[in-house]
Amino acid sequence: MDRTHAPLFEKMVSHYRKKHVSFHVPGHKSGKPLMTEEAEFFSGIMSIDYTEITGLDDLHHPDGVILEAQRLAAECFGAEKTFFLVNGSTVGNLAMILTVCRRNDILIVQRNVHKSVIHGLMLAGARAVFLSPRWDEETGLAAGVRPEDVDRALAAYPEAKGVLLTNPNYYGMGIDISAVARIAHHYGKPLLVDEAHGAHFGFHPDVPPSALSCGADAVVQSTHKMLTAMTMGAMLHVQGERIDRNALSRNLSILQSSSPSYPIMASLDLARRTMHMHGRERLSEGLAAVHAFHQRMKPLSCFRIVRKAPETSAYETLDPFKVTVCDATGTLSGFALQRELERFGCMVEMADARHVLLVFSLASEMDDAERLASAFLRISRQFHLQKKENRRFAANRYSIPQYTAISPPVSFDLHSFSETASEEKIRTVRLEEAVHARSAEMIVPYPPGIPVVYQGEVITAETARYLQSLAEAGAKFQGAKDPRLNTVAVYDHFQ
Amino acid sequence: MDRTHAPLFEKMVSHYRKKHVSFHVPGHKSGKPLMTEEAEFFSGIMSIDYTEITGLDDLHHPDGVILEAQRLAAECFGAEKTFFLVNGSTVGNLAMILTVCRRNDILIVQRNVHKSVIHGLMLAGARAVFLSPRWDEETGLAAGVRPEDVDRALAAYPEAKGVLLTNPNYYGMGIDISAVARIAHHYGKPLLVDEAHGAHFGFHPDVPPSALSCGADAVVQSTHKMLTAMTMGAMLHVQGERIDRNALSRNLSILQSSSPSYPIMASLDLARRTMHMHGRERLSEGLAAVHAFHQRMKPLSCFRIVRKAPETSAYETLDPFKVTVCDATGTLSGFALQRELERFGCMVEMADARHVLLVFSLASEMDDAERLASAFLRISRQFHLQKKENRRFAANRYSIPQYTAISPPVSFDLHSFSETASEEKIRTVRLEEAVHARSAEMIVPYPPGIPVVYQGEVITAETARYLQSLAEAGAKFQGAKDPRLNTVAVYDHFQ
Repeated sequence: MDRTHAPLFEKMVSHYRKKHVSFHVPGHKSGKPLMTEEAEFFSGIMSIDYTEITGLDDLHHPDGVILEAQRLAAECFGAEKTFFLVNGSTVGNLAMILTVCRRNDILIVQRNVHKSVIHGLMLAGARAVFLSPRWDEETGLAAGVRPEDVDRALAAYPEAKGVLLTNPNYYGMGIDISAVARIAHHYGKPLLVDEAHGAHFGFHPDVPPSALSCGADAVVQSTHKMLTAMTMGAMLHVQGERIDRNALSRNLSILQSSSPSYPIMASLDLARRTMHMHGRERLSEGLAAVHAFHQRMKPLSCFRIVRKAPETSAYETLDPFKVTVCDATGTLSGFALQRELERFGCMVEMADARHVLLVFSLASEMDDAERLASAFLRISRQFHLQKKENRRFAANRYSIPQYTAISPPVSFDLHSFSETASEEKIRTVRLEEAVHARSAEMIVPYPPGIPVVYQGEVITAETARYLQSLAEAGAKFQGAKDPRLNTVAVYDHFQ
Repeated sequence: MDRTHAPLFEKMVSHYRKKHVSFHVPGHKSGKPLMTEEAEFFSGIMSIDYTEITGLDDLHHPDGVILEAQRLAAECFGAEKTFFLVNGSTVGNLAMILTVCRRNDILIVQRNVHKSVIHGLMLAGARAVFLSPRWDEETGLAAGVRPEDVDRALAAYPEAKGVLLTNPNYYGMGIDISAVARIAHHYGKPLLVDEAHGAHFGFHPDVPPSALSCGADAVVQSTHKMLTAMTMGAMLHVQGERIDRNALSRNLSILQSSSPSYPIMASLDLARRTMHMHGRERLSEGLAAVHAFHQRMKPLSCFRIVRKAPETSAYETLDPFKVTVCDATGTLSGFALQRELERFGCMVEMADARHVLLVFSLASEMDDAERLASAFLRISRQFHLQKKENRRFAANRYSIPQYTAISPPVSFDLHSFSETASEEKIRTVRLEEAVHARSAEMIVPYPPGIPVVYQGEVITAETARYLQSLAEAGAKFQGAKDPRLNTVAVYDHFQ
């Protein structure tokens, strides 16, 4: 296979150059009816917005250029088989879970997963045994699970169908996937990794290794997030024998459009070619911008940038392209910082109560870093931040114990919540009376923002004690009916 | 609301014009790393390939420009509420079924539906009572169901949760949706319509009325197929009180990417604006090309074009933009005709054993019609078709009885087929012995190509007699283990 080619994209272009006439969908017929301003943005892409016509293969039964493009992607990302996704990592997570779990099957799941994982459990009608992640004392953020907790969970639930982790987290923090893979495989279980934020992992010595290289069996990556595909372009990679590839392929065919977008698929092909040919070089260019930003920020001690501390951090790896910044003086919340940065034209990925998350990529340039650092400088001046004293983090103002309990199995179903949602079946009880009851609400203390109880989850004595200690320490429970958590809503009939 | 605006697209363009810097996903950062040939096609679209940044709303919780764009779409297409879909009509069908059906619920379903409907039944774990469509004697094609059969089915299964039809079919043939809506509503049930091929319906006196205008409760339309959105751009329209809109919205959030494509959403906004402002006029332009093609084909009597015959056709409406042609002399199969047309650069939508299906749209031009007609002329000369005698249709060579049986409920489950697929549980029996057994295969006689038995469906005495008569008349059962259907594969344990 020739990595310098992008077989799907090239076939589409060659079809385009032939100037054939379309008597097929899509109805825009290569974008003919576009008006001036529309054409500026859409005419290029619509000219190759094809469908499954002769020569262009079929995503759901690939045997031509799409298969070839997927094989090149497998080679590039280190998989045995790669599936192109046109419905984001979301559909990869859904299909992965449906492939591994039937109704009532148990999956070991990290608590702080992307919601698509919870949705996958609901579609499958599966049960989750949740592992709480460690939280990071320096930042107050939820990081990853401890491998020993995976071991404990698999020992306690040997009937589990596998282990699913989201790694890295949104802030780029990751754990040692190899250790978890070894444990899962020791029990004969597949390790599924939602690596949505790590498609670039493994392509440069300064970024963490990829989950595939660490031994994960199935890995979902958002090629659009940290690489260069169009939004919704993602990949699902598989290796080894623990995943039923036919079932996975069938589940993807069920969940993805029968008219998948060729431009998105072609953008996956091109993103792969870029990494295949120039991966390390391109990442170096992006990292240069990241480093320039760090340099420029050094004098601004009022802003704290999350850095891994080898001794104390609750994570093993940190993606350098994810830059998490807070106002260390506590003057500006994360949301306020976002607002100020955006006034200077610097659009951020996300803000939480404390931080803004800035996403660099291989396409980031020195000018971008310069503009961002200038914005921070101007904000520091405007709010006189350099004259204020830095504070400790909110998370450290009271002592949050690490919570590493393994949950009892929590049943998910597409209809379970709505079926039991009628008010008469829900009681409000004092927290200490809620032990052994199924919670009727999701309980998420801030900080550290990890869901400690999912709706439908039985509240154990250990969990109740933990929640009690959090409440006493002053944690807030946003979204809960009682934000101080003196009371909890539970379902009337126990389990 | 001002129909001349495209609020989502305009907001994206205004963001683009501000030349903000991206510290968010997607990683391509407005397409910066594109190489020359890539840029020709992708640079326009990637410059507005945004995500949920400030000001650009959120498809899963819309309260800004996306909500506004959806409201304009609802107004334009005659709905009370419209959901933008970025995963094709596929996701609309899945979400619609999951909203109406819980496990083991019954849905009345037309037999010749799109596979996404079957997939929706599988995800829901629902049961289908299948209605056989009439088949059209002139063409041998499966058309739509009879309203009286819907009535019979609802009388027999009053616990059914609703009725789902695919209308029009792929060839543009449709039924009287109003009659079915009246019947469904008489029983207090919602009518769900997969109108994937009819997004243009109702915008011109020469096209059929839309399902919404006929009273359907939920309607899925592929805006990319017959209108001008990018591929995967579709809409789900709802009216009335029979559909739980909150549940529908939640199910769409489960099944669609949490990073939906803004270009696709914007293309929906633009496609809506085109129809809202110039719908009839644009359709007239496309119809002019269709008419020109018909004119040019008149002397070529060797090609038969499907036309509705008021007396005998098994359908009520025919979409003029769908042009189905066959070689009336029987020299060229549909597949051969496709091959020949494509040699002249005319790419067709689809071929079956007899026909090619040509899709015109509002973007079709007179030149396209001219080029297509010229290709037919040259093919007729090359194969001396005008000198040969026209034959009757294959379907008419033997008498296929209309089959309007209402099936017993057929259970669907994501895992049911694979669970029972092991060979030891399947027996091969003579057709007459298969009565009351659950079929282990899908049985589709050609012609007319309608699935008469779904995998897992109990074979009734009536069905067995019908299949017998088809086999005796010479029908082929492609894909069946025994293509003459002397024997059938059934599951070992009955029902």
